[in-house]
Amino acid sequence: MTKDSDFVGVFDSGVGGLSLLKELIKNHPHQSFVYLGDTARLPYGAKSEKTIESYVQRNIQFLKNRHQLKAIVVACNSASTILDKITVDLPIYGVIEAGVKAALKSHSKSLGLWATKATVRSNAYQRKLSKLAPSINLEQIASSCLVSMVEEGLDHPLYEPAFKYYLSLFKKPIDGLILGCTHFPLFKERLKTYLTKTKQKIQLIDASSELSQEISSHCSKSGKREISLLLTDHTPHFEAFVKSIMPKDQTFHLEIVDL
Amino acid sequence: MTKDSDFVGVFDSGVGGLSLLKELIKNHPHQSFVYLGDTARLPYGAKSEKTIESYVQRNIQFLKNRHQLKAIVVACNSASTILDKITVDLPIYGVIEAGVKAALKSHSKSLGLWATKATVRSNAYQRKLSKLAPSINLEQIASSCLVSMVEEGLDHPLYEPAFKYYLSLFKKPIDGLILGCTHFPLFKERLKTYLTKTKQKIQLIDASSELSQEISSHCSKSGKREISLLLTDHTPHFEAFVKSIMPKDQTFHLEIVDL
Repeated sequence: MTKDSDFVGVFDSGVGGLSLLKELIKNHPHQSFVYLGDTARLPYGAKSEKTIESYVQRNIQFLKNRHQLKAIVVACNSASTILDKITVDLPIYGVIEAGVKAALKSHSKSLGLWATKATVRSNAYQRKLSKLAPSINLEQIASSCLVSMVEEGLDHPLYEPAFKYYLSLFKKPIDGLILGCTHFPLFKERLKTYLTKTKQKIQLIDASSELSQEISSHCSKSGKREISLLLTDHTPHFEAFVKSIMPKDQTFHLEIVDL
Repeated sequence: MTKDSDFVGVFDSGVGGLSLLKELIKNHPHQSFVYLGDTARLPYGAKSEKTIESYVQRNIQFLKNRHQLKAIVVACNSASTILDKITVDLPIYGVIEAGVKAALKSHSKSLGLWATKATVRSNAYQRKLSKLAPSINLEQIASSCLVSMVEEGLDHPLYEPAFKYYLSLFKKPIDGLILGCTHFPLFKERLKTYLTKTKQKIQLIDASSELSQEISSHCSKSGKREISLLLTDHTPHFEAFVKSIMPKDQTFHLEIVDL
């Protein structure tokens, strides 16, 4: 039986998943969260399936040893592609299933996906979509330059040429675009502005609000909570990134862990 | 004492260092090479100094266990930043020292550097340059989007806006540009074309021909040689990349190794 003081564990290959954590923190103000960013091994996007699987197993075990957990949220798309292969004695939620559910709620008829090479190669979004709504079309584009841009800064001047380029790769017009990498919601507002400016009607879809609803039943409704951020490697850049993303009024514990 | 059959070991965080290996192979047609690409842990550029140091130690040990070695070439800039801290009983050559020597031979008066965040943060190019030629100015720019672009393909349409952007970040005009990431020589021709088109007189400097000269004295001058490529993680993308870079007439042994 879980207790009110138990944590929801969240992990990602780096700090991109903090965009999701921010949403979870905002919507569940009494729930404690522990976030593991595997910055020593990022990006998972370029790794093989076998390697990603071993990282996921290790991350889950580490979080379970660290805190009593109620549930696990996998914020990393590349890691979410292999969740079917993982056995764990806790509710586990991945961004891919949540992203596909959010896409269905958007009522888009022709979907596009931007993601890392590994996520596209895994075909995980297509498989999930084929199960839930076989009539909906999905076109998948690997767009890894956008990952580096987010890491270089949220005001990067190359976003517009990159948006233009990666949108041009879709062979058919799309009316919904899944932001299938945990970094991508961080440029959502900027992409919205670009789409308005260029008169393109495309709904932007990401997993965060859907996931936030999905974990609702596990979340404490009262009491003081803790936020713990664990990174497997420390660089000044990441610390700055963490501080730029986390809400100003939220205290948190930041620690570098060996894993 | 080394024998003619002994190998020169080369390692990089990924497959970018193959651009350097290609140059070494071409200039030393009788020398055997073993190349280790630590694709399971790439990119080193985002890791801390301590983590990079432990990877470098492990890579050297692994190569020594695998083959009799004459010398080691560190093709990765991020790894070359910490070579002063490594003790090894073999001649060891890094791309940073070679890059700075090549820059001095170019007679540029005002140098620019494009590199990963880790290389820029380490200040290793500046330190080496201050020792060898304190009067020459160097301005360092982290340009990690260019790394993703090379990995996405050598004909990427975002190169031109990216060249324009990363050149615009130099506060003073430069007359020599060090390509300080092992991936960057792969877009050298394209950048040359862009500079000609935009009428900018900037010499492009990379470490490969300098390094090729430096290892000359170790290299066998006759006999049949072997080329062995070892990767720590396998993805179809990398195999394609390896094939696109390696000379068509060179046979090689490709193996995935656990490290």
